[in-house]
Amino acid sequence: MRYYIEDLKNYVGQTVELKGWAFNLRGSKNFKFLILRDGTGLCQCVVAEGESEKESFDNFSQLTQECTVRVVGTVREESRSPGGYELLVKNFEILAPSVDYPITHKEHGPDFLMNHRHLWLRGKRQHAILRVRSEIISAIRDFFDGRGFVCTDAPIFTPSACEGTSTLFQTQYFDEKAYLSQSGQLYMEATAAAQGKVYCFGPTFRAEKSKTRRHLIEFWMVEPEVAFNDLYDNMELAEQFVEYIVQRTIKNKRTELEALGRDLSKLEPIKTPFPRLHYKEAVDIILKENANFIVGDDFGAPDEAILCTKFEKPVFVHHFPSAIKAFYMKHDEKEPEYSMSCDLLATEGYGEIIGGGQREESLKALEKRILEHKLKIEDFQWYLDLRRYGSFPHSGFGLGIERTVAWICGLQHVRETIPFPRLYGRSYP
Amino acid sequence: MRYYIEDLKNYVGQTVELKGWAFNLRGSKNFKFLILRDGTGLCQCVVAEGESEKESFDNFSQLTQECTVRVVGTVREESRSPGGYELLVKNFEILAPSVDYPITHKEHGPDFLMNHRHLWLRGKRQHAILRVRSEIISAIRDFFDGRGFVCTDAPIFTPSACEGTSTLFQTQYFDEKAYLSQSGQLYMEATAAAQGKVYCFGPTFRAEKSKTRRHLIEFWMVEPEVAFNDLYDNMELAEQFVEYIVQRTIKNKRTELEALGRDLSKLEPIKTPFPRLHYKEAVDIILKENANFIVGDDFGAPDEAILCTKFEKPVFVHHFPSAIKAFYMKHDEKEPEYSMSCDLLATEGYGEIIGGGQREESLKALEKRILEHKLKIEDFQWYLDLRRYGSFPHSGFGLGIERTVAWICGLQHVRETIPFPRLYGRSYP
Repeated sequence: MRYYIEDLKNYVGQTVELKGWAFNLRGSKNFKFLILRDGTGLCQCVVAEGESEKESFDNFSQLTQECTVRVVGTVREESRSPGGYELLVKNFEILAPSVDYPITHKEHGPDFLMNHRHLWLRGKRQHAILRVRSEIISAIRDFFDGRGFVCTDAPIFTPSACEGTSTLFQTQYFDEKAYLSQSGQLYMEATAAAQGKVYCFGPTFRAEKSKTRRHLIEFWMVEPEVAFNDLYDNMELAEQFVEYIVQRTIKNKRTELEALGRDLSKLEPIKTPFPRLHYKEAVDIILKENANFIVGDDFGAPDEAILCTKFEKPVFVHHFPSAIKAFYMKHDEKEPEYSMSCDLLATEGYGEIIGGGQREESLKALEKRILEHKLKIEDFQWYLDLRRYGSFPHSGFGLGIERTVAWICGLQHVRETIPFPRLYGRSYP
Repeated sequence: MRYYIEDLKNYVGQTVELKGWAFNLRGSKNFKFLILRDGTGLCQCVVAEGESEKESFDNFSQLTQECTVRVVGTVREESRSPGGYELLVKNFEILAPSVDYPITHKEHGPDFLMNHRHLWLRGKRQHAILRVRSEIISAIRDFFDGRGFVCTDAPIFTPSACEGTSTLFQTQYFDEKAYLSQSGQLYMEATAAAQGKVYCFGPTFRAEKSKTRRHLIEFWMVEPEVAFNDLYDNMELAEQFVEYIVQRTIKNKRTELEALGRDLSKLEPIKTPFPRLHYKEAVDIILKENANFIVGDDFGAPDEAILCTKFEKPVFVHHFPSAIKAFYMKHDEKEPEYSMSCDLLATEGYGEIIGGGQREESLKALEKRILEHKLKIEDFQWYLDLRRYGSFPHSGFGLGIERTVAWICGLQHVRETIPFPRLYGRSYP
């Protein structure tokens, strides 16, 4: 029988054995307190003179931060213990030492913490963030699986570039060159024709030589694609999806979000429908506060911030200028200078978390644009086949996991949103 | 309102609109049959003289394989229709043409099919396989999420090799070199200390210059790791996990498995407990049929086949010789020439689907072995920190998704188990 701290409520009055690590230690003459960490939670373990075995009481001072320890004791309710239950210790045993643990309860700089990421993960805050991340991933899967989507993962090694060639990681693939995937979208267009509603969920890579609080070199993305969906169906799917993720995370990970100091009143209103702005409407709003914005350009982070602080819900911007969008984006037949694209900007200045839209289904238009974008048309013959043989309207989007985690947790920097962040200049540990 | 073929049972007697592709076409003088494919299933659509609109009846011959079509008609039960329901067509419209679709209903060679993977996916068999794959992925997630595991994905870019250096993909990571992950295990050991029970689930890479029916260059792996689990706990977790995946797939994807001709009577007995053989016991069995087997060696595919045809359940082989296992594997204290490792061999000759075991927790032993394996000790300082600060017994395993899909579907070759297979000499489409 294995006991975990998160289950102690079921064992009140019983004697249990816990295994974990010494998270914190303090004591007075007659009472010593060990805060034990076992991965599922924290528990106050009380070593009391006369109640605990003498040897354990005497050896309390041998405990050090993060040493491994086995504790036997009786569970009782105690509102001052981190999880609401404490252990009255019968005895404990140190299973492995920990001398001069590098991360103390003092402040450390980000570089030091990143170099010790493998240990930093044990901290209260990182523990909570990664639990929220795991819940978000689980919610994403359940949303799509529950609606009949088929998970059809895209390859990582790709023969061609999808989102522009400047930020590609190249690798030798035996006698050829291959690139690491920047998006699974083109492949999802093929599987959407086979399965109707599909998604992929995996890591993607962009070799961006920039250090910002919103960029990772390696980040996870979920990309649904639906046959016969147009731009408006796509926005409807995206808003239902985001509502589901946010509301489920609030429901299932309230303790963790509260531990992170997240203001839940900012997340609770995230319910459909979300406001929608045509690019032209969005530009009108931006120009009032940023007179230097050039009409026709993509939004910078400050422009996104202007927009998303205007609403208490995430806001769609659709119909971005065709000229600034990828080759596969469908142009609106009624106003071809605008594309059937949509981005979703998160609240509180977090900016873009979703990008997507309706894909070009005309063979001729696509061939023309591949050439205009100076891409090699022979790399895209398979993709053009999807228009040669039973072309179909279809739409999809990509949601970046780390930006979503940062938003829901209320974090300043994406480096805390993934177990082992890869940033410009950092691939260790 | 969007109607899908898989939901037609709910609309008997009603008029619905379906959108999809012409999968098959045949007809007599008064009755024409279109088998429509919409990704969720196949449906027989009957175009009948006098009952369907005259224009639709007259234009039936314009339909071609895989052209895109919108069909309006009335749903009725019909046991001869693929899904048990058919559509009495009122009218149809061709939305997009498909001229000379490359994959006919004749036989094609594997190279031709692989070059047309993006279209081959639309076939009945590939459709069924990828639905089973998606179910298996979903089952994997539910198993771990339902038992309190935290998903803590490992990085793809890694500074060092884990499973030996000969099969590594290297890439330029700005000014440094980085390698594509072969396993997330070392990272899961770090997150297990933070979260107790963890798993990662992502693509892994091995640059193997071999063409076999069991090897992919890019394959997906799920890797759980549990703090304070020993080898025997690990085997218990693995067998519960495999039982869950198999039984749930039989339950939820029976139609697809039957379409693939899978003999379900071979899968139904896959229930815990699974037989367990010490390496020495396994060798005794192998030697009776393969006198050339060299004691102390790892098993080849034929040796695995000898073992797994002896049992109607998957069989564990544990305690492989320490000399043939990775540096991180714990040696048995009672017989140090054997390691606390375990492989799980699937039934019917499918061989290894799981590899894992208990990890070495002694700092000194690990340091020694990293040097013996000629790995760079500076790359592993973060990993050694896990033994410096609160070392703990822990175990885990990796399950290969594609081999598991091949086994459960009863396939000859792993190339059919993943949407876009990457093989030696193939990275297109």
